[in-house]
Amino acid sequence: MSVYIEPLAKLVNAFSKLPGVGGKTALRLAYHIISAPQEDVDELTVALNEVKQKIKYCSCCGNFSQDDVCDICKDTRRDKTVISVVKDPRDVIAMEKTGSFKGVYHVLHGTISPIDNIGPDDIRIKELLTRLNDVTEVILATNPDVEGDATAVYIARLLKPFNIKTTRIAHGIPIGGDLEYIDEVTLSKAIDGRREM
Amino acid sequence: MSVYIEPLAKLVNAFSKLPGVGGKTALRLAYHIISAPQEDVDELTVALNEVKQKIKYCSCCGNFSQDDVCDICKDTRRDKTVISVVKDPRDVIAMEKTGSFKGVYHVLHGTISPIDNIGPDDIRIKELLTRLNDVTEVILATNPDVEGDATAVYIARLLKPFNIKTTRIAHGIPIGGDLEYIDEVTLSKAIDGRREM
Repeated sequence: MSVYIEPLAKLVNAFSKLPGVGGKTALRLAYHIISAPQEDVDELTVALNEVKQKIKYCSCCGNFSQDDVCDICKDTRRDKTVISVVKDPRDVIAMEKTGSFKGVYHVLHGTISPIDNIGPDDIRIKELLTRLNDVTEVILATNPDVEGDATAVYIARLLKPFNIKTTRIAHGIPIGGDLEYIDEVTLSKAIDGRREM
Repeated sequence: MSVYIEPLAKLVNAFSKLPGVGGKTALRLAYHIISAPQEDVDELTVALNEVKQKIKYCSCCGNFSQDDVCDICKDTRRDKTVISVVKDPRDVIAMEKTGSFKGVYHVLHGTISPIDNIGPDDIRIKELLTRLNDVTEVILATNPDVEGDATAVYIARLLKPFNIKTTRIAHGIPIGGDLEYIDEVTLSKAIDGRREM
């Protein structure tokens, strides 16, 4: 690496710690920075620092938030009687983008995964149980994988005594998908989950 | 974009100004920053600032440098009688990586390109002419494209009166290349440039 002068080598090294950025890309980004306008670089460094300083997690639902309670929990127009349980804050953003959910969220910050030593007490399940007053429906929107399914089943069983409607998001063929190329597990889930029309 | 809280939206925006980083990648990088260790983020912001503050261009050859004169120009072991002319500082790094050039460099910071309104006076050709004392060979190592070739021809013509050996790097089939799949122009250059063995 001695062909790079020190500040360049350091920046290449820092960039290559980002996900999906290898040595060549890091070098290309670093070269760009050398010739980029000072304002753009300032904008990036300020934004990096602000994200680390200002973004916290909502004390109520666990979503990204700048304040103690996030904008969604604060919003009086949201239906507090329906809680959607998701794995992490990115899933909240994904669901918000659809614009079709008007309830509130509960972010688990993980899913039960014995192989990674993550048990029910390591994710925010206890916090969910304290939020169940006046709640009429809990939607389990964890990912349709082994860990997500296990977590959904676990929470559904916990909620049984509370007599709250507990639902799971539908699994099936994505819009625009092709039956011929879809995997068997998804197709059999889609058949199981068929609805009358 | 209202689904993103402000610091996150700003960082996504700043990241997406980097070359090759689209909206999805910018979002992935931003999410990574939120959960990345504070030291890594500090390392990145410090490196970004240092690159902008510390990297200048060598007053002699135009290469990246932390000081007024770069390490290569300072190095007494380098052969100052051979100058390799390249388009930009990245090309210096590419040549240094080969380890097979022991002379010094001259970085043009561009190539002649009438279509982009870049003439001979817009790149560092005048500065090259002031460095020709004691020089025995000038290697024209601009890229083998229209602009690079035009610039090489232009400089070669300028150097004629100085009676300095002027050479052009070889164009031909890359090592590991396959005659069957190489383009015609490269192959005909390789035939023209054949050497006795």
